[in-house]
Amino acid sequence: MFKEFKPELPETYRQTDFVLLANIEPSLQAHVLEQMKRPRFVVADTMDLWIETARSDLDELLRRVDLLILNDSEAREMTKETSLIKAGRRIQKMGPAHVAIKKGEHGALLFGEGDHFFSCGAYPLEDIHDPTGAGDTFAGGMAGYLAGTVKTVHFNDLRKAMIYGSVLASFCVEAFSLERLRSLSIEEIAKRYEMFKLMSQFEAPPE
Amino acid sequence: MFKEFKPELPETYRQTDFVLLANIEPSLQAHVLEQMKRPRFVVADTMDLWIETARSDLDELLRRVDLLILNDSEAREMTKETSLIKAGRRIQKMGPAHVAIKKGEHGALLFGEGDHFFSCGAYPLEDIHDPTGAGDTFAGGMAGYLAGTVKTVHFNDLRKAMIYGSVLASFCVEAFSLERLRSLSIEEIAKRYEMFKLMSQFEAPPE
Repeated sequence: MFKEFKPELPETYRQTDFVLLANIEPSLQAHVLEQMKRPRFVVADTMDLWIETARSDLDELLRRVDLLILNDSEAREMTKETSLIKAGRRIQKMGPAHVAIKKGEHGALLFGEGDHFFSCGAYPLEDIHDPTGAGDTFAGGMAGYLAGTVKTVHFNDLRKAMIYGSVLASFCVEAFSLERLRSLSIEEIAKRYEMFKLMSQFEAPPE
Repeated sequence: MFKEFKPELPETYRQTDFVLLANIEPSLQAHVLEQMKRPRFVVADTMDLWIETARSDLDELLRRVDLLILNDSEAREMTKETSLIKAGRRIQKMGPAHVAIKKGEHGALLFGEGDHFFSCGAYPLEDIHDPTGAGDTFAGGMAGYLAGTVKTVHFNDLRKAMIYGSVLASFCVEAFSLERLRSLSIEEIAKRYEMFKLMSQFEAPPE
């Protein structure tokens, strides 16, 4: 199906500052990246299939990526480390200055330069109706937040981007396919962000 | 081994305000509790064995407990719920106003009255040398924090107690048996608490 797929970007797309390379084959991700004029921040998503079948292309891509997003089992597979903390730090050595490891219902971990680290829970949901698209929504939410609000990316921006990615993914899984996202408002996102913050902070305002 | 064990508390112990019933058989936990004069806050730990073999004793005990601590698989087993959010809320209906569900390397969840909820990550460790005792240390840390600093227990106190429980458990697993705890200082605990807070907060001070 994707055998003949070789994306050519329209001229206007090539000027974009923030690039999100979704999890297609690493050589195609590289092909997209080569068409960009001067991207300021490159985010890439990947998956087990490419770790297993296109490792050298993936390794090459990693050297040109600022933030890699992958899930816990993929991070372990890629590094042969059981500890996600070790896995994240090891992936950084392969190229990306920042790594986001998704843990599904357990949240996500963000590794930055030096000892920058952020542990993000998952927004608590009683029911998960359809997990399809949660990972893509998470990556899209992170990249979208950065592209929409940030000039120079600092660790605190990535931290906030990860929270927004988690919030958007939490909406995504509440209904079938993209249904929930279609009707989602900025106000609902902002409200859930605040709830999420309240549930996660160490020192809350007095009751 | 525990067949003849029937703990009798010395008179001075019976006056204690905060009680932690470690995870012995529920009928023995009840026997200890009955000896207490007027406990202000009762914490109980439990385990899969009692959920499977002493359920009615456990159910009876739950009605007299303020905070139940158990791990994720035990919470699921006890409630037949896959969602930990549903499981926590369901256990509250069985008696305890507060429930703490431990998720090992993924942290812990705290359920309180109304919609009070706290999601706590785990302090990130590259190596786990010996997980033995982590659960007991977590429970002891929670109860110890409450007993040492709190008069009337509010949700924010439990939140902080859970963080201290997590911090102590993170020290516990760093070395064999209780070795690390033996040499642990208050300053080390306070320092790790601050690091942990920095790694978990949504909005950090500017870099």
